[in-house]
Amino acid sequence: MGAFQEERQVLIATPVLQVRPWVEHVHRIPFYVEMAVRNSIYGRPGASYLDMPDDIITGKVDESRVEEPARCPDPPRTQAMPDDVERALNVLRSAERPLVIIGKGMAYSHAEDEVRAFIERTKVPFLASPMGKGVMPDNHPLSVGAARSHALQNADVVLLMGARLNWIMHFGLPPRFNKNVKIIQLDIAAETMARTRRRKSRWSAMAKRSSDNSTRRSASASGSIPRTRLARCDRGKSGGDAAQIAPQLVDDGAPANYYRALKDVAAWAPEDAIIIGEGASTMDIGRTQLFNAKPRHRLDAGSYGTMGIGMGFVIAAAVVHPDKPIISVSGDSASALRHGDRDGLPLSAAGQDRRLQQWRHRAGARETSRQPAPEPEAERADLRRRYDKMMEAFGGKGWFVENPKDLKSALEQATAFKGPALVNVMISQESARKPQQFRWHKLIR
Amino acid sequence: MGAFQEERQVLIATPVLQVRPWVEHVHRIPFYVEMAVRNSIYGRPGASYLDMPDDIITGKVDESRVEEPARCPDPPRTQAMPDDVERALNVLRSAERPLVIIGKGMAYSHAEDEVRAFIERTKVPFLASPMGKGVMPDNHPLSVGAARSHALQNADVVLLMGARLNWIMHFGLPPRFNKNVKIIQLDIAAETMARTRRRKSRWSAMAKRSSDNSTRRSASASGSIPRTRLARCDRGKSGGDAAQIAPQLVDDGAPANYYRALKDVAAWAPEDAIIIGEGASTMDIGRTQLFNAKPRHRLDAGSYGTMGIGMGFVIAAAVVHPDKPIISVSGDSASALRHGDRDGLPLSAAGQDRRLQQWRHRAGARETSRQPAPEPEAERADLRRRYDKMMEAFGGKGWFVENPKDLKSALEQATAFKGPALVNVMISQESARKPQQFRWHKLIR
Amino acid sequence: MGAFQEERQVLIATPVLQVRPWVEHVHRIPFYVEMAVRNSIYGRPGASYLDMPDDIITGKVDESRVEEPARCPDPPRTQAMPDDVERALNVLRSAERPLVIIGKGMAYSHAEDEVRAFIERTKVPFLASPMGKGVMPDNHPLSVGAARSHALQNADVVLLMGARLNWIMHFGLPPRFNKNVKIIQLDIAAETMARTRRRKSRWSAMAKRSSDNSTRRSASASGSIPRTRLARCDRGKSGGDAAQIAPQLVDDGAPANYYRALKDVAAWAPEDAIIIGEGASTMDIGRTQLFNAKPRHRLDAGSYGTMGIGMGFVIAAAVVHPDKPIISVSGDSASALRHGDRDGLPLSAAGQDRRLQQWRHRAGARETSRQPAPEPEAERADLRRRYDKMMEAFGGKGWFVENPKDLKSALEQATAFKGPALVNVMISQESARKPQQFRWHKLIR
Amino acid sequence: MGAFQEERQVLIATPVLQVRPWVEHVHRIPFYVEMAVRNSIYGRPGASYLDMPDDIITGKVDESRVEEPARCPDPPRTQAMPDDVERALNVLRSAERPLVIIGKGMAYSHAEDEVRAFIERTKVPFLASPMGKGVMPDNHPLSVGAARSHALQNADVVLLMGARLNWIMHFGLPPRFNKNVKIIQLDIAAETMARTRRRKSRWSAMAKRSSDNSTRRSASASGSIPRTRLARCDRGKSGGDAAQIAPQLVDDGAPANYYRALKDVAAWAPEDAIIIGEGASTMDIGRTQLFNAKPRHRLDAGSYGTMGIGMGFVIAAAVVHPDKPIISVSGDSASALRHGDRDGLPLSAAGQDRRLQQWRHRAGARETSRQPAPEPEAERADLRRRYDKMMEAFGGKGWFVENPKDLKSALEQATAFKGPALVNVMISQESARKPQQFRWHKLIR
Repeated sequence: MGAFQEERQVLIATPVLQVRPWVEHVHRIPFYVEMAVRNSIYGRPGASYLDMPDDIITGKVDESRVEEPARCPDPPRTQAMPDDVERALNVLRSAERPLVIIGKGMAYSHAEDEVRAFIERTKVPFLASPMGKGVMPDNHPLSVGAARSHALQNADVVLLMGARLNWIMHFGLPPRFNKNVKIIQLDIAAETMARTRRRKSRWSAMAKRSSDNSTRRSASASGSIPRTRLARCDRGKSGGDAAQIAPQLVDDGAPANYYRALKDVAAWAPEDAIIIGEGASTMDIGRTQLFNAKPRHRLDAGSYGTMGIGMGFVIAAAVVHPDKPIISVSGDSASALRHGDRDGLPLSAAGQDRRLQQWRHRAGARETSRQPAPEPEAERADLRRRYDKMMEAFGGKGWFVENPKDLKSALEQATAFKGPALVNVMISQESARKPQQFRWHKLIR
Repeated sequence: MGAFQEERQVLIATPVLQVRPWVEHVHRIPFYVEMAVRNSIYGRPGASYLDMPDDIITGKVDESRVEEPARCPDPPRTQAMPDDVERALNVLRSAERPLVIIGKGMAYSHAEDEVRAFIERTKVPFLASPMGKGVMPDNHPLSVGAARSHALQNADVVLLMGARLNWIMHFGLPPRFNKNVKIIQLDIAAETMARTRRRKSRWSAMAKRSSDNSTRRSASASGSIPRTRLARCDRGKSGGDAAQIAPQLVDDGAPANYYRALKDVAAWAPEDAIIIGEGASTMDIGRTQLFNAKPRHRLDAGSYGTMGIGMGFVIAAAVVHPDKPIISVSGDSASALRHGDRDGLPLSAAGQDRRLQQWRHRAGARETSRQPAPEPEAERADLRRRYDKMMEAFGGKGWFVENPKDLKSALEQATAFKGPALVNVMISQESARKPQQFRWHKLIR
Repeated sequence: MGAFQEERQVLIATPVLQVRPWVEHVHRIPFYVEMAVRNSIYGRPGASYLDMPDDIITGKVDESRVEEPARCPDPPRTQAMPDDVERALNVLRSAERPLVIIGKGMAYSHAEDEVRAFIERTKVPFLASPMGKGVMPDNHPLSVGAARSHALQNADVVLLMGARLNWIMHFGLPPRFNKNVKIIQLDIAAETMARTRRRKSRWSAMAKRSSDNSTRRSASASGSIPRTRLARCDRGKSGGDAAQIAPQLVDDGAPANYYRALKDVAAWAPEDAIIIGEGASTMDIGRTQLFNAKPRHRLDAGSYGTMGIGMGFVIAAAVVHPDKPIISVSGDSASALRHGDRDGLPLSAAGQDRRLQQWRHRAGARETSRQPAPEPEAERADLRRRYDKMMEAFGGKGWFVENPKDLKSALEQATAFKGPALVNVMISQESARKPQQFRWHKLIR
Repeated sequence: MGAFQEERQVLIATPVLQVRPWVEHVHRIPFYVEMAVRNSIYGRPGASYLDMPDDIITGKVDESRVEEPARCPDPPRTQAMPDDVERALNVLRSAERPLVIIGKGMAYSHAEDEVRAFIERTKVPFLASPMGKGVMPDNHPLSVGAARSHALQNADVVLLMGARLNWIMHFGLPPRFNKNVKIIQLDIAAETMARTRRRKSRWSAMAKRSSDNSTRRSASASGSIPRTRLARCDRGKSGGDAAQIAPQLVDDGAPANYYRALKDVAAWAPEDAIIIGEGASTMDIGRTQLFNAKPRHRLDAGSYGTMGIGMGFVIAAAVVHPDKPIISVSGDSASALRHGDRDGLPLSAAGQDRRLQQWRHRAGARETSRQPAPEPEAERADLRRRYDKMMEAFGGKGWFVENPKDLKSALEQATAFKGPALVNVMISQESARKPQQFRWHKLIR
């Protein structure tokens, strides 16, 4: 009839959501809510959508007709077949440069204890995907996060634990991966396994040798894998990467470069902080410089690379963890607002208070690091975006940091302030991460 | 394969868009662009979606293979059948209290000259839908916009010109409409005609008597409809409404009420300004107090009532009309930010310069006028949202108006400023529009 | 919950149907039925889908709550703008070899009287699309159906009346159309106009010269178009085509060729018969040999070329026209059942009785004419499909015609039989229509 | 452009299929085929859809660009967590009247050996769902298939093995199930578990006590469950059911009743035959009277109850199992063809030859057993549907059995015939299965 906001939401939601019933009777709401929750957390997690037209929302119901389902039980677990585990371990044992990639699947299934037991017992080095960070602490001795490119290129066996070989992992293809690499995959969604490795020889190898698809498995049988050469050589290589970054870390020139600014943030961030990353260079470099010590303490644009989600993440994190500090580190790569030769890094920080703020970016942000730098203009103070002032306009407090030497103090003041705090750090336009060595996000030969 | 932002957008877009092909060859892009444009502007206008995967975006093409379609011609026009026109005129001639409702269909089809000729020749009073405002000037003597409720309730014949009887028009049903009203509909989409009038007697009446479904028709045959009683009695009733509003218009107490604040804006707004409305009370009262003199000069949340579209409208309007002033009048009904006993009306205004700004509201805004007012708190200056400061944080200029007496001056200064300007007006929480007399947006018996 | 036949039909129906609401209250059924009917017949006709879950189907309702909408009025008509008509006529007047193509749009909108008045006054030759057959009688002197290819290739101006330039019309492109042809289009769906003509020059020509998009227009202003050369030369050419076909028409060899068999059917078919065509060669040749004298008396696989719809068409036609003879002419191109060197043409015919039968074909049927003929095998009587026996198995009567000389008598007996009758005619495998001169159904350069 | 059979199949397929990509490059076809196969057989099995536009189908490709994925490996297996298994066994041990329901999940995952080991070790009686028949032989001593209603009503613990509580299982609700029944579920799709049991008490019970969701588990720990009272009482009850059926089994009156006719078929059917069931009473009674001895040897209309799938099943079975006899038992409940007082059971049988035939039914077939029997008419031989003759019309052989005494002989002759054979058995209209005791297929309070 043309009712207010009458639209076929169920149809729109169909391609991306797990369940999307419409509720046809008021007394069935609990039934559908339970179904929606169950479908959101069982199997591969995802959103559910319930469509409630206004006659359901405003409807009345005889309470005696309502059957309340009990709380949806935790998702059931399964384990891998012993033979599969054995085959996987045999492949790992034969490896010279094994590597574990930890994905958000391990975080979602609360498997951090099992992952740690496995890693520490086998001494296999590991990397984490953006949302898998913290399942193992980033500063663990077996982490090769600082030598990520080298580790991926040289591993001869990769064990994916709840991680997918999507664009973030370069589809598992050369040149980012060794062309003879063997893949062992541990995942909850069997049908997505091996999606992106296409060459016959590798498929066969995989089909013959391994595949452990349990989401949870004990490391009890995996003790005999020796500390590998990858771990050793990565230490060295890591030094190589560090050598490249080291001068930036101590460069106190203003405006700050990314590494210099993030160094202070990393030093200041409490271990139990929820860390949110957004923006192009800010998010990418932030992933490497800001360490997570706990699982499920990082929110990241993830595989869609969506910009503009930071504020929503802050609010969601504050609702779920009212007692934890929430730090949103966000770059402003919005093209519409860019006009100077300096890039501002508005850095948000909360002390023991969870109130904080940050700024939304516009679509297109992701382009930042791929476009030629704009022509330098004369620096005009009035063209700088003063996110810090915006925070103050809404009752919080802001700091404007033009010189990296002032950052530490600003962060400390932000901690001391009992309310949403925003630290706006000017970043040098020349301060890019190292250039992407391989082409873009989709590889079709 | 899990590529960057790989998603089935075509599926998601399907329920709401006119065309949504994916482009399968680079050399076919012009073909699809022309198709998308044509489908957007022909028939009932709407958005098209073209899906271009990254291999199309980054693809190369032999230019000689590309066929460039010519510019898509203007949408073809049709006219009503003479018999239908005659029947419609007979119904109008028999009416005692006829009423024309002008919708955005007339604006989209650039029919303002024909509409004016018809209205002025027949002397039938008219109302406009939100997006139909300006097809006839709001201050035209035959406008009964100021007595909208009375006009709807008393009309015995309603001629819909490119307007639909959706929730904004209360579905054409009692108690907002006379239960014996006869409807004549002029629309481009035949299949949506008569959608919401359900009772047998009225349908029959309609089926027998009228229905002119051309989007364009000449008023040449319509001269004989006399100036009606509705026009007359509406003058009186309009006085009644005016009587209710009059004291508010002259109430200079601080903070301002809606009518007082909008009075200054209305007086100051240039006739060729694009006026954008957003928010609950702000948008609703703004529709009645801010007059449009030209068609297609108003952007409004429309039938979806979507909040948060004001900024996008400002940018779009500035792109299409770089030479016109753009005025966005936006309320802040975002629940997350409400905490005082005063409601801020951040008013945006641009002088001869098109640069301007306003602030986004959050979802839920629409609830404002329907909820009981929050308990009064002591007024705390630090809890006021200072949109004006936000504007200054990004290089524009802002004014904070606590007393309505200062509004006129602020608006004039905003005009004089060569850049985006934002006038933030504090509005009294008691300053609601008159209560909605009928229930919500969907009427199912 | 996993109910019987519980499926998301609304989603499945979304891409192809006009309306597809689900019914949420029993008392709203009449509202939705009226909406479904209206959307099916207004604008561009098409199917609607109403989803009624079992609690609606088996639900009870207080009758006083049910509002019965009156019968949905006939679809509203519109007419073209006088300027467009004038431009179109000017283009036609300038033509040397004009051609009208009559499509099903004219049949759907019951415009046969207007079409005939226009054609006869202007003396422009015409062709019909498969479902447009009968709007003008196929045996009308101005019909160039027998010289279809020649007419399409030589026309310098084509007036589409409710017809689309889809694959059946070779997209309006060379080599089937003159590369300089000018197109005038009369259609109910403005947005589909000019979809397939892509070259700039032609688009411009069209945009400048014409476009009459009314579904109905009077021929009153169109008297001055002279009888054209196309009409003349087509007579000659038609003789050329006839020369090719003539020997087949008189070839009484057994098994029959298509033309010989269809000749008897054409002579025997009553003028008011509903004629249904299905199969590959059978349908294609049948379109040219079986004449329609009345509009809406032909059901054809149409633009989808769907096989297996004949039986459904027969039933539907019998329901709508219980007093008319229904003739379904259907080829058996089902690959699964083909094993001999002869192709059977099971021909169905009903006399004054509407009962009749035919057989379903399987998907893939359409391939028949495009594949090399199978190797000849020895003719084995037991491998022939005896559709006639099948008819008798279900209470009707069948005739098996191996020699074309027996066909006429079989048809007469079928007419005399008071029940469903099926005449199964053996067709020579060599009896193909002339080879398709241009490549398949989709032309992307 | 309106190409041949151009339609948005991907959109139509979206709601019901697992994967439905369109293929965008010829050289990617193997990639997508592997993906389609993998998604069809991994996780919960289902159909995939690949959309190949005609330029892909007819496209050429440089073979060196094509990467051939290896054959998709068998679906990975998982096992239940030991704790879950232990809890499930404890619930079973505490049961007085346990029952196993075996579903098609066990057949799909080739778990027949494990299921048999578990059943025989625990001595828990079992039932099978229609497509789960044959995982355990129907004539196994622990089968309570002959006392299905009694078993369901009395079980105090039900172990679902790859079966769902959908409409076929009466949603697991009273009155078909004991209202205090405890459910243990073993399933591959965790998110569908416990979907239909809604009352709090039962949910809690289930959440506390059990849930084993592995598709495969060893019976190694399950030895201690005693042979239960259900098994014993079911023997008695089964005698009760048998008593009701017994007189029908020996009733040689013509036309045959269902049980009498199916008795001969059951005795004659080879153990390795693929048995296909279709129709209303025919399928339902056939499920109980025709035994399956092997898994994956029964094709059934299943949870959608779709009529008309028998012929497709026959062809599919013949393709997959060219060496096995295929028996399709199909009722003719098509309303369009019903006109006598006798119902024909066209019974198809193939001996050692796989060729056979049966007849399609029309939609609506399912209604048969729910409608009052039509008024008896005088028996008219010409109104009987002679499916046997239809078979002969296409080169097979048919038998028409009016007296059950002739059935055995006809079946033997059918076996001896080297080709598709159809035995058409007349069934008494009075020969209904016992009336359905509970209401229809969807239970919403």
